Amino acid sequence: MRISQLSGEAGIPVATIKYYLREGLLHDGLLTSATQAVYDESHLRRLRLIRALVGGAGLSIAAVRDLLGVVDQPPASGHDLLGHAHQAIIGSEVRPVDITPVDTMLGALGWDLAGCDDAAKSSVAEALEGMRSAGFELSESTLATYARTMHEVAEAEIAGVPTESAESAVRYVVLGTVLAEPLLLALRRLAQQAASRERFGVRPLES
Amino acid sequence: MRISQLSGEAGIPVATIKYYLREGLLHDGLLTSATQAVYDESHLRRLRLIRALVGGAGLSIAAVRDLLGVVDQPPASGHDLLGHAHQAIIGSEVRPVDITPVDTMLGALGWDLAGCDDAAKSSVAEALEGMRSAGFELSESTLATYARTMHEVAEAEIAGVPTESAESAVRYVVLGTVLAEPLLLALRRLAQQAASRERFGVRPLES
Repeated sequence: MRISQLSGEAGIPVATIKYYLREGLLHDGLLTSATQAVYDESHLRRLRLIRALVGGAGLSIAAVRDLLGVVDQPPASGHDLLGHAHQAIIGSEVRPVDITPVDTMLGALGWDLAGCDDAAKSSVAEALEGMRSAGFELSESTLATYARTMHEVAEAEIAGVPTESAESAVRYVVLGTVLAEPLLLALRRLAQQAASRERFGVRPLES
Repeated sequence: MRISQLSGEAGIPVATIKYYLREGLLHDGLLTSATQAVYDESHLRRLRLIRALVGGAGLSIAAVRDLLGVVDQPPASGHDLLGHAHQAIIGSEVRPVDITPVDTMLGALGWDLAGCDDAAKSSVAEALEGMRSAGFELSESTLATYARTMHEVAEAEIAGVPTESAESAVRYVVLGTVLAEPLLLALRRLAQQAASRERFGVRPLES
C-alpha cells in the first residue's frame, strides 16, 4: 500500500509516519520509484506498536527507539531479558539517593533482592523520598499493602512470560511492563472511587 | 528569609521560584520594600509540594495549579472529595471509547461501580484498547490479578483517609493518588526483577 493508505489504516498522519521513518523507528518501505515506496502489514503493526508506546504509555521518542531496539534484537540468554528491557525503559541511571532503606524495608517484607539492580532500587527510594519531601506520610500498613500487591502482580506477570522464543519473551516483558502501567493506575483510581463511595457514601446518612 | 535563602533551602533555582510566583502556584511573600519580599516556612512547604508534583509525579504546571486549587479550597462535603481530586488529576474528559466492556468485566469480578464516573471507566477502557492495538494479549488471569490487587490497594488507601478536616482529607487523597503512582510502578519493576530471577535464574543451571 501507499503511505497515504498506511496513514488511513493506522490512523496516523502521513507527516508523523515520515517522521518515524526519519527517526528510524519504522523500517523503510519497498521503493517502487525514486520517490515512491510501498508498505505492508509489518509497517502497520509497527505503527500500532509505536502509537501505543508514545500515546498509551506516554514514552519519549528516544525511549521508544531503545525499546524497539530490544524488541528487534533480543538478548541471547533468557535471564538477561528483564534487565535489558528495564534498562531500555527506565535507563540504567542510579540516582543519587540512599538505597539502604529500600533494602531494609523490602527485606523485612520478605523480598529477595539479590538479583535486583541498584537502578530499580533507586527508583523506589526516589519515589519514597518524593512523598516524604512533599509532606505526605505513608503509613506502614499502606506501604506493606503496596509491596505485597506489587509482588503478586509481578509474579503473575513473570509466570506468563512466553518462552518459545527470546523475541516473544522480550516483546511480552517490554510491552507488558510499559503498557500495563496506565491500566493499573486507571484500575486503582476506579477502585478508589468504589471504595470511597463505600466509606463515605454518596448521600448523607438516612435517619 | 530572602528569596535567595528560600532557593537554597528548597533546592530550587530563584528563576524557577519567580516562575511559580508568576503562575500563581506559590503565594506572594511579604513586601519589605518596592522590590524586596520575605518568605517563610509556608513558602518552603509549598515549594516542596510543587517539586514533588512536578518532579516526582511528572505533572504539568496546569495540572499542578488545578491540584493546588483543590488542596487550598477543599469541597465542603466529604463524599465529593475523591471526585474533585480525581477531576483535578485526570480531568473530567470522557474519551471516545466504549466503556461497556469495562462494566461487564469489572462487574463479573464483583466490583460495585455505581458510584464511579465515566471518565474513570474510559481511562480503563483506553488502557485496555492501547494494549490490544499494540498486539499485546493480556491473559484473563493477569487482568483478574490486576483488578483484585488494585482493589486491595484502593481499600487500604481509602481506609487511611483522615477525617479531622476536609483540607487534610483532600490533601491526603490528591497527594496520595499522584505521589504513590511512581512508588507503585517502581515497586512493580523491582518485584519483576526478583520474580524473573526466581523463574529464569541468574546463571545457567548447574549440573
